[in-house]
Amino acid sequence: MLIVMKADATEREVADVVHIIQELGFRAHPVPGEQRTAVCITGNQGAVDPSHFENLPGVAEAIRVSKPYKLITLDLKPEKTIVRVGDATIGGEELAIIAGPCAIESRAQAFAVAEAVRRSGARFFRGGAFKPRTSPYAFQGLGEEGLKILADVREAYGLKIVTEALDEHGVDLVERYGDVIQLGARNMQNFTLLKRAGRSHLPVLLKRGLSATLDEWLLAAEYIMGEGNYNVILCERGVRTFAQHTRNTLDLAAVPAVRRLSHLPVVVDPSHGTGHNYMVAPLARAGVATGADGLIIEVHDQPEKALSDGAQALTLEQYERLVTEVRAIHEVIAPAPVG
Amino acid sequence: MLIVMKADATEREVADVVHIIQELGFRAHPVPGEQRTAVCITGNQGAVDPSHFENLPGVAEAIRVSKPYKLITLDLKPEKTIVRVGDATIGGEELAIIAGPCAIESRAQAFAVAEAVRRSGARFFRGGAFKPRTSPYAFQGLGEEGLKILADVREAYGLKIVTEALDEHGVDLVERYGDVIQLGARNMQNFTLLKRAGRSHLPVLLKRGLSATLDEWLLAAEYIMGEGNYNVILCERGVRTFAQHTRNTLDLAAVPAVRRLSHLPVVVDPSHGTGHNYMVAPLARAGVATGADGLIIEVHDQPEKALSDGAQALTLEQYERLVTEVRAIHEVIAPAPVG
Amino acid sequence: MLIVMKADATEREVADVVHIIQELGFRAHPVPGEQRTAVCITGNQGAVDPSHFENLPGVAEAIRVSKPYKLITLDLKPEKTIVRVGDATIGGEELAIIAGPCAIESRAQAFAVAEAVRRSGARFFRGGAFKPRTSPYAFQGLGEEGLKILADVREAYGLKIVTEALDEHGVDLVERYGDVIQLGARNMQNFTLLKRAGRSHLPVLLKRGLSATLDEWLLAAEYIMGEGNYNVILCERGVRTFAQHTRNTLDLAAVPAVRRLSHLPVVVDPSHGTGHNYMVAPLARAGVATGADGLIIEVHDQPEKALSDGAQALTLEQYERLVTEVRAIHEVIAPAPVG
Amino acid sequence: MLIVMKADATEREVADVVHIIQELGFRAHPVPGEQRTAVCITGNQGAVDPSHFENLPGVAEAIRVSKPYKLITLDLKPEKTIVRVGDATIGGEELAIIAGPCAIESRAQAFAVAEAVRRSGARFFRGGAFKPRTSPYAFQGLGEEGLKILADVREAYGLKIVTEALDEHGVDLVERYGDVIQLGARNMQNFTLLKRAGRSHLPVLLKRGLSATLDEWLLAAEYIMGEGNYNVILCERGVRTFAQHTRNTLDLAAVPAVRRLSHLPVVVDPSHGTGHNYMVAPLARAGVATGADGLIIEVHDQPEKALSDGAQALTLEQYERLVTEVRAIHEVIAPAPVG
Repeated sequence: MLIVMKADATEREVADVVHIIQELGFRAHPVPGEQRTAVCITGNQGAVDPSHFENLPGVAEAIRVSKPYKLITLDLKPEKTIVRVGDATIGGEELAIIAGPCAIESRAQAFAVAEAVRRSGARFFRGGAFKPRTSPYAFQGLGEEGLKILADVREAYGLKIVTEALDEHGVDLVERYGDVIQLGARNMQNFTLLKRAGRSHLPVLLKRGLSATLDEWLLAAEYIMGEGNYNVILCERGVRTFAQHTRNTLDLAAVPAVRRLSHLPVVVDPSHGTGHNYMVAPLARAGVATGADGLIIEVHDQPEKALSDGAQALTLEQYERLVTEVRAIHEVIAPAPVG
Repeated sequence: MLIVMKADATEREVADVVHIIQELGFRAHPVPGEQRTAVCITGNQGAVDPSHFENLPGVAEAIRVSKPYKLITLDLKPEKTIVRVGDATIGGEELAIIAGPCAIESRAQAFAVAEAVRRSGARFFRGGAFKPRTSPYAFQGLGEEGLKILADVREAYGLKIVTEALDEHGVDLVERYGDVIQLGARNMQNFTLLKRAGRSHLPVLLKRGLSATLDEWLLAAEYIMGEGNYNVILCERGVRTFAQHTRNTLDLAAVPAVRRLSHLPVVVDPSHGTGHNYMVAPLARAGVATGADGLIIEVHDQPEKALSDGAQALTLEQYERLVTEVRAIHEVIAPAPVG
Repeated sequence: MLIVMKADATEREVADVVHIIQELGFRAHPVPGEQRTAVCITGNQGAVDPSHFENLPGVAEAIRVSKPYKLITLDLKPEKTIVRVGDATIGGEELAIIAGPCAIESRAQAFAVAEAVRRSGARFFRGGAFKPRTSPYAFQGLGEEGLKILADVREAYGLKIVTEALDEHGVDLVERYGDVIQLGARNMQNFTLLKRAGRSHLPVLLKRGLSATLDEWLLAAEYIMGEGNYNVILCERGVRTFAQHTRNTLDLAAVPAVRRLSHLPVVVDPSHGTGHNYMVAPLARAGVATGADGLIIEVHDQPEKALSDGAQALTLEQYERLVTEVRAIHEVIAPAPVG
Repeated sequence: MLIVMKADATEREVADVVHIIQELGFRAHPVPGEQRTAVCITGNQGAVDPSHFENLPGVAEAIRVSKPYKLITLDLKPEKTIVRVGDATIGGEELAIIAGPCAIESRAQAFAVAEAVRRSGARFFRGGAFKPRTSPYAFQGLGEEGLKILADVREAYGLKIVTEALDEHGVDLVERYGDVIQLGARNMQNFTLLKRAGRSHLPVLLKRGLSATLDEWLLAAEYIMGEGNYNVILCERGVRTFAQHTRNTLDLAAVPAVRRLSHLPVVVDPSHGTGHNYMVAPLARAGVATGADGLIIEVHDQPEKALSDGAQALTLEQYERLVTEVRAIHEVIAPAPVG
C-alpha cells in the first residue's frame, strides 16, 4: 500500500498516517517528494485495506501495491501446471480440444456429435445437463438424465467429460458421472460453490465472469485452490462491453496476462466469446495463436434445431475444418516460455 | 422476433424462413421493403430463440421483439407493489431507509450504529453476517453469530433486519433471524439461490449484478416470483464500467427504466454504488431525486477501523445529516405516477 | 511513480532500476518489503512515463502516482471558479439552466422555445447550428444561418447563447454570434480544437467524451487553460457502457469527483445522458441533487417533429415543471464546500 | 423501423402511429400479435429516426432495422477492396505489415528502425510526426520536421509512409510527404477531418474510436467515401472496457464482423490494442489468425528510451521473430471468402 498525501498536508497529518500504520502492526516509510509526501507500507501479509486510510485528513489517495493472491502465482510455483485427466492433459504440449453441444438434448444428438469429436482426435467432450438460463422460461437442461448420457458417451468413445455444476448438489452429480467440473461465468464469484469444487477430487474448469477483472478471476481460482484442489483450468469466454456486434467481447489479452502471473493453464471459449457461428472459427484460431492451452467449442449436428445457443454452434463439418487449422497454428507457435 | 433478410436474398430463401417459422408453430408475416424483406413472427408465447434463424441462407439479422418477462410487468399488474415488512413498507409513500454497517463485527458496533439508525427514524437495519469477499483471505463475516446479534438489534430497537444470504443454507438462517433476504450482485444469476429465495416467506432485496442488463435483472426477479414469492425489491448498486474514479458507476437511469416496465419497488445503494465516503451523500440525494423508493446505506461508528468497506461507510454524523436532506428531496418529488 | 519489483528480483536488478531513475534526473528511494522491494521516484516535475521501467528485468509493475494536471487543480486555486457571461454566471450560487432545442431548425422553432426558456427564468439558450451526426446522411444543422437565428434570440430575449463548434472555423463563427463555445463529446480529444478554444475570449463548455476517464477529461480542460482561457465549464453527459436501456449511462459520481480535484464548475446534461424523454426529468433532478452547478437540457416545441434527437427533448410543459422541481432541490442542497 | 405497441395500446393509438408513418411518406404494415401489435415501416430511404415514435401514446419501443450505411457495404460492392499504394497493397493476398516507431524522434532512430522494417520484407513504415497526447505536457511530436525524416526514409528504403494527421492542415502536410493518411481513434468522429481526408488522393487508414460501435466506425468510413475517396483501410486498435490488465481491449471479433458487412480491408494494431510489450506478439498472431489483412506494429530500436509509448514497442529482434510467425499463420488461413 502506498499512501499519497495531499500537496497541502501538514506534518501532523503525515505523522498521524504513520502512527495508524504502526498501530496496525506494519512499518511506515515516508518519502517526501517535490510537491507532496508519500508513505509506503511494508511488513504486511497480503493486501492492506485502503479504507483504513482513504478518508483520513491530508490523504489524497491510497494505492494498492501488494497483490492478494498466493497459490496461483509463478512466485509460488514457477513451472506451468499440467492438469491430467486420465491419459489426457490440459496445459501440456498438446493443444486440448473440448468440444460438444451446448446442452445435452438427447442420446442421439450427444452420440452424433461425440462421434465427430472423437474422429477429430479431441480428448474432451463438453455438454450441459444443467443449464444456467437468463430466463426461467428457457430450456434448463435434462438434469441427471443428461449426465447419464454423458457417462455413456465416455464409455462409448473414451472422451473425458467436461460438464457444468450450478450448485453444491451439482458438484456431487458431476463427481459421479463426469471428469472435469465446469464452473460458469455467472458463478465465478459464487464462493460457496467455489469452495465445494475446491474439495473435489476432479479438476475444475473456471470460466471468467462477465465483468471480472483479472484479479477477481485469479482470486476465484485461489478460493478453489485454498481448499486443496490445485487442478484448476482457467477459461476466457468473453466479457461484457458496449460492443453489440458480438454477444461478448473475447478478451484474448487475458491469455498472456494470465501466463505472466500464474502457472495455471488457460483455455479459450470462442463460442460464448462471440455468440455467432461465423465468428467462432476466426476467434478459435486467434485464441490458439495467443498461446492458449486449448479451446472449448460448441458443436451441434443440427444447429438450427438446438434447444440453446444454436446460433453459435458449429456444424460437424465446420468443426472438423477448424480442428485442422488450429492444430497447424499450434505448430507455428513455439511453446510460450513461462514467465 | 423480426427476421431481416439480406438485400440479395432470393424468394426461395424467404420462403424457407417462412416455412421454418410455421414448423415451429408460429405465424409468419413477410413485409417486403424497398431494399429487403423482413419477416415478422407472431403466435409465439414468450421470446423466440434467434438462433433458429440467424445462420439460415439469406438472413441478415434476427431481432428480438417480445420481452421474455411476465410477472414483473405493469401489463400484468398496473399498480405498484408495496412490500410490507411488519408495520414498515417499501414502495409506498414513505421513503424507505435501510442503514447499518457493511459487516456485523461485534455486538458493541452493531448496537452503536443501530442506536443512530433508530434515532434517524429509519425502519430498516442492514448488516452482513456472511460477506462475499473477492479474496479468500479477507474477513468473511461472523456467520450465525452475526445473525444472532442482528436478531438482538431487532428486539432492542424494533428495526427490521435486512441481511444477505450467500447460499441455500444462508436463506434458512436469514429466515430464522431476519426480515428481508438480501441477494448480492455476484449472486444475481445464481439461479439455485434465486429459486430458494422464491420459496421463502420473507421479502427479497435483489441487487443488480455488476454487469447485468435491465432485462437480466428483471428476469432474475422473475425467477424468484416464478416460485411464488412476489415480494421482491430491486436494488441498483452500480455497474462495472471503464471509469476509475468510482468503485462502480451508479446507473440512476435504471430507476425510471424499472418504473416504466415493472410494478416492483426499486431502491438505490450509493455506498457500493460509489465506494467512496465523499460520494455517498451526493449520490444518495440523487437516487432519491430520481424517484427511488428508498436507500440502502452503509454507516459505521468508526469507519477507519471497519473490517470491510470502511472507505465508503458514513460516520453517524454524516448519516444523520443525509437523512434530513433526502427526506426534504423526497418531499419535492411528487409521487411518480406508475407507467 | 512507484516501481514494484518482482518477488525474485535480484539486488542487481534493483540497482539497475535505481540507476535508470537517477539517469533520468530523478531521485530513487528503494523500500524493501517482506516479499518484494518497491522503489519510489521523487524529484520529477509532472508524471513520469511508466514505459521507461515496465519492461526492465525484475520489474513487476510501474504505478503512476503524480497526476499530470496542474491548472485545473484545487492545489493551484482553492476557491471555485465562477464563469461570468455578461450578467449571468455558472459556478456561483444560482443554479445555471441552459435550455433549448438540440438543433436550430427554423426561426419559428427557435423563438417558440426561447420564449418558454426565458419565461422559466433560465439565463442560457442552447441550440446547435453545426450538428455532429454519426451518419453523413443525417441532418447536419443550418450552419451560419442557424447562428444568425441564435443571435436574434439573444437580441430578443436577452438569453446567453451556448452553441457548438466542430472545428476551428466553427470557433470563429461562435465568437461572432454566440456567448459560450460548446465542445462536444466526440471532440473532447480534438487537441487542435481545444487549443483554438483556449485562445478564445469566450467561455468554453467542455463535454466529457463518450469513454473519457476523469483524468482525460480534466487534461482536455488543461489543454484549453494552457492556452490562456481559464473560463472552462465541465459537462457530464453520460458515458458508454454495456447498458441498453439508456443511450448513455449518466455518471453522476463525476460531479463530486470533479469537485474534489478541481475548481472548475460542472454541469449535467440529462438529455444526451439518457436519450429518452421519460428519463430526463428524474436524471435532471438527480444531477442537481449531486450538487452540480447547472443543467443543459433539450426542449422542443414539437418533439415528435424534431430533426434530431427528438426522442429526448422535453415538451415546453415538461420543461417548465422540471425547472420548478430542480430549483426546489437546489434549495435543499447546502452549497457544497470546495475540497 | 419496427414500432412495437404496448400490450394495452388501443386501436386508436395504433391508427395514430400508422397515420404518422404515412405522413412521413412511408408505408405502414401493422402486424397484430398474440399480446401486442407491431407496425413495420417500409418505403424509407436510409434509417428512420426512432424519435418520431418513441414518445407517442401506446408505443413501447421503436427498433431500428435498416442500417444507415451504403458505400461500405457488400450489397453495393461484393468483391473486396484492394487498396494500392504504389506497388504495395492492403487487402490483397499478401499480409500487409506496417511497422515503425510510435513517434519519429530523430533521423537516427527512424533510420535504425526502418532498416529492420525493410529487412523483414514489410512494405509500410509508420511513425508519428504529430502525436495526439492526453496531456498537454507530453511530447507532441517533431511536426513537419518529422515528416521530412519520413520522406527520407521512403527515399532510402522504398517503404510507403503511413502517418497521422490531426487536423486539416495535417492532411495537407501528409499529402506532401506521406503515402497513407492515418486518422486516429480520438478523431474517428472528427467529421471535419473525415471530410477533408475524403477529398484527398491518398488512402486513409481509419482507426476505430475508443468506444465506437461497429456502426459508428463504418459510418465514419462512409463520411470519407461520401466525399469520393474509396481507399479506406479500417484499423481495429482496441476499445475501452473495465479491464485493467491491458491499456485497451483488442476486439478481434471486429475483423469477421467487418468482413461480413463490408468490402473494405481491415488491419489490426496489437501495440495500442494492448499497451504492453509482452502482449504484442501473441495478439498480433491472433489478429492474423482471424483473417485480418495486415498489422500495424510499433517497433523501436531502444524502447526503454522512447519518448512515447515505449512500454508497448517491440525491440528489433522481437519484431523480426514476430514477422516470421505471422507469415506462417497467414499461410495456414485460407483466404477468407467474402460475405
